[in-house]
Amino acid sequence: MPYVNIKITDENVSAEDKKALIEGATQLLQDVLGKNPATTVVVIDEVNTDNWGIGGEQVTHRRQRGQ
Amino acid sequence: MPYVNIKITDENVSAEDKKALIEGATQLLQDVLGKNPATTVVVIDEVNTDNWGIGGEQVTHRRQRGQ
Amino acid sequence: MPYVNIKITDENVSAEDKKALIEGATQLLQDVLGKNPATTVVVIDEVNTDNWGIGGEQVTHRRQRGQ
Amino acid sequence: MPYVNIKITDENVSAEDKKALIEGATQLLQDVLGKNPATTVVVIDEVNTDNWGIGGEQVTHRRQRGQ
Amino acid sequence: MPYVNIKITDENVSAEDKKALIEGATQLLQDVLGKNPATTVVVIDEVNTDNWGIGGEQVTHRRQRGQ
Amino acid sequence: MPYVNIKITDENVSAEDKKALIEGATQLLQDVLGKNPATTVVVIDEVNTDNWGIGGEQVTHRRQRGQ
Repeated sequence: MPYVNIKITDENVSAEDKKALIEGATQLLQDVLGKNPATTVVVIDEVNTDNWGIGGEQVTHRRQRGQ
Repeated sequence: MPYVNIKITDENVSAEDKKALIEGATQLLQDVLGKNPATTVVVIDEVNTDNWGIGGEQVTHRRQRGQ
Repeated sequence: MPYVNIKITDENVSAEDKKALIEGATQLLQDVLGKNPATTVVVIDEVNTDNWGIGGEQVTHRRQRGQ
Repeated sequence: MPYVNIKITDENVSAEDKKALIEGATQLLQDVLGKNPATTVVVIDEVNTDNWGIGGEQVTHRRQRGQ
Repeated sequence: MPYVNIKITDENVSAEDKKALIEGATQLLQDVLGKNPATTVVVIDEVNTDNWGIGGEQVTHRRQRGQ
Repeated sequence: MPYVNIKITDENVSAEDKKALIEGATQLLQDVLGKNPATTVVVIDEVNTDNWGIGGEQVTHRRQRGQ
């Protein structure tokens, strides 16, 4: 019954990548806590790099600096 | 003062549907807990079917299987 | 497959109230969008009135003012 | 280490505005709680006015009424 | 830079279990998307079974029915 | 109408600190985007250090290492 929300920047994440995240997160909850995969929900949010900040700086700027 | 977040897949949800969700959720909080509708906030997130998983499977695939 | 998160202040919300919120939100998604109740998830967060602000003011203070 | 999520309606918010929100929120956590800016994360979600309700009414309608 | 939020019911989850969830989720983001673990944040929310519903039913009741 | 969610570790955050976070976040949205404070909502979540991970490590362990 777990709910997992994964937030990442929207930098060319493929449908295959998302498939792997959904499978991996569902497996993790089963491995660690024995949760039934049938009712595990995973939602991936892709966030524009202008809208994500770390260290007080937009990711857009970090990318321009090569980070 | 409640805050309600509704996450659904982005499959042709109309503005009228969203209006009904907002009205219904606001009414529910008033009916059950007597919350003042004036300060009830409802936010609807529409999520791509590639980004939503249940049972370890992307909703995109479930739809292709007719589920 | 919807996911509904309801945030309310932790002011004597009974188990029966929570039951009614879960039933009502699940019904709303079925009524408006035809969503299957079996995979609708509802999570209720109860938040201390010190931790909730509206109008720049803690709810604790609003309650002391009779609001 | 704080995580701040800011949800606003998607009404012409510029990259500069977002930069100011990220800087301001990071500063606030440092000023009030002494949190290290290096590990403070800020994520801004822009929400369509059809998908945001307050007082049981879509923001789209409120805007049409001049609010 | 990812942010992962894991919501589970508060049913005797040990500190070791939480450690395993944090390590596993961080590893997953590195394996699938090459994300730097140093800036990956994982937050686990434990939710009372009265406050979690699926299929329109409180988890508390499901547990009483042996589910 | 903004909604701001601040997640921090539950390490002796006083009611006064929370008051300052609520006032500061509300002011920030008014300063940057001209948002009306009356409908700005701020919710603070305090998270146990066992339940928060960064760099694949629980904050509880980081604190023991003096970080």
